[in-house]
Amino acid sequence: RRFLKLVKICCKTLSDFWLSRILTFQLLPKIIKRRVYALKRLQLQSANIEAKFYEEVHELERKYAGLYQPIYDKRRDVVAGTVEPTDEECEWQSDREEVELAEDLQKKAALEEKQAESAGTDDPKGVPEFWLTIFKRVDMLEEMLQEHDEPILKHLLDITVKFSEPGQPMSFILEFHFEPNGYFSNSVLTKVYKMKSEPDAADPFSFEGPEIIDCEGCKIDWQKGKDVTVKIVKKKQKHKGRGTIRTVTKEVPQDSFFNFFNPDEDLDFTLATDFEIGHFFRERVIPRAVLYFTGEALEDDESDLDEEGEEEDEGDFDPTVSI
Amino acid sequence: RRFLKLVKICCKTLSDFWLSRILTFQLLPKIIKRRVYALKRLQLQSANIEAKFYEEVHELERKYAGLYQPIYDKRRDVVAGTVEPTDEECEWQSDREEVELAEDLQKKAALEEKQAESAGTDDPKGVPEFWLTIFKRVDMLEEMLQEHDEPILKHLLDITVKFSEPGQPMSFILEFHFEPNGYFSNSVLTKVYKMKSEPDAADPFSFEGPEIIDCEGCKIDWQKGKDVTVKIVKKKQKHKGRGTIRTVTKEVPQDSFFNFFNPDEDLDFTLATDFEIGHFFRERVIPRAVLYFTGEALEDDESDLDEEGEEEDEGDFDPTVSI
Repeated sequence: RRFLKLVKICCKTLSDFWLSRILTFQLLPKIIKRRVYALKRLQLQSANIEAKFYEEVHELERKYAGLYQPIYDKRRDVVAGTVEPTDEECEWQSDREEVELAEDLQKKAALEEKQAESAGTDDPKGVPEFWLTIFKRVDMLEEMLQEHDEPILKHLLDITVKFSEPGQPMSFILEFHFEPNGYFSNSVLTKVYKMKSEPDAADPFSFEGPEIIDCEGCKIDWQKGKDVTVKIVKKKQKHKGRGTIRTVTKEVPQDSFFNFFNPDEDLDFTLATDFEIGHFFRERVIPRAVLYFTGEALEDDESDLDEEGEEEDEGDFDPTVSI
Repeated sequence: RRFLKLVKICCKTLSDFWLSRILTFQLLPKIIKRRVYALKRLQLQSANIEAKFYEEVHELERKYAGLYQPIYDKRRDVVAGTVEPTDEECEWQSDREEVELAEDLQKKAALEEKQAESAGTDDPKGVPEFWLTIFKRVDMLEEMLQEHDEPILKHLLDITVKFSEPGQPMSFILEFHFEPNGYFSNSVLTKVYKMKSEPDAADPFSFEGPEIIDCEGCKIDWQKGKDVTVKIVKKKQKHKGRGTIRTVTKEVPQDSFFNFFNPDEDLDFTLATDFEIGHFFRERVIPRAVLYFTGEALEDDESDLDEEGEEEDEGDFDPTVSI
């Protein structure tokens, strides 16, 4: 007992929990400790094999990116309105939402719809504001979204992801494709996420697969006076001697989604959040965009969150997480 | 406003959150809704491609299981003491724990260690109680562990996982290997976890990769009177007519880790927990056993939990989760 007390004083940094572990290990006879070290060396070997596994998974992802591409292209065309889907392509009998809506509610909805139709432009192209709507609905993105970003994001045609070539350092590139617009001359804004896919020499056992370690935005060629990531502030200056007053203007950074492409600006934009957002675009928004548009995916995310609240991650048995 | 009110009354089941989504969608002009249905049909196509992706990941896991096997075999031998690792195999210079322990604490530890050594059997084989120690340290397992289970688990030699053959329905088998013991005649206790790896027809968009859908334990051939999953209770019975009293004994189920192999017994053992435990053995305990023995992995799990508390899953950028 006195011993443990002393220990706690010695290593305040260690939680008692963690502490008890170390001690039980420390107090093992040398002959056994020695064998445990042998087991730890074996564990290092499996960590390195694990790294190879994740490289092969990355290869698989590249392969499948190719298989998804035709579907994503079709999505882009339907959203942009360059292609009008055939009746067959639009068949959707068992529409959950419709079903879930009560009878008389549907009447109301139908009514409102008519009004909307007659009110709205008589022939809207594609799915107007598809991506902007998604930005508004996904909390993580909505937090970044500013009023002055919205007119710009109406010109967003598609978001795509590119994976690094085999042999290259592991990374992925998010590409935001814009139609010609009055805000900037770029047709594509890019953000590269670099990943580390081998165990860290200093702490190899913490390796759980590739991690985003760095990201890099791109220069946006704003049209004169259209850069929403800065605002102009006027300042009156009084001349020391003459006492004359002149007004100087200077640019100061302002919140905008477009700071996402220039995160060096340390607005309230931590690297961790940045990584999380990149991960979310890649893993969620791009593969499931329409479900965020309709709201179906949002429901799922919510329940995911609930589950994760409870335990390590109940309900999530995705084997790709394993080994 | 009145409209929304009505809606809420109509569909109490739907959260307002979810609701607002449906409505915005419901109120889209038909011509646009039609295109969105086309996008949903495209989404179905990608869900099916995604299923193929996860099948290939499963193949990869089978391939890598083979690569890990020699390491696991070596671990088993060192733990059992059938192989004594060479000095080279035991080299472990930068030992975090040692470092973190304060000077004088180390002296104390050394002392305690001597005592332990002189006290304990002079020549312990392998790493005694390796797996039992892990059971005691992992909360999820410790919850199932009963005092009467511990002497049995001292005979646990190894835990391994086997993946289903290609072409077969996706599944994995946990195998618990025991040395000959006085409790049951089985040398291996098994638990099969069956998985579903294609989108559910009823709700295809919720597909996030393979899920455990069913599991099956095995019959334990207990030695007479050694079955710890039941206890004998004596009951006095009074004969209606004669009024003579006789004592009858009957078996009633009792808590034990070994109910894990017979979960039909609905003790406080939900299927969800069962799946979670199987997943945890496969993904955590088997690949990282020594780190749970030393406590290092426990530290990691804790911090994982912290992170998951906060957000969807911050800090976890494992790309194998994605697409």
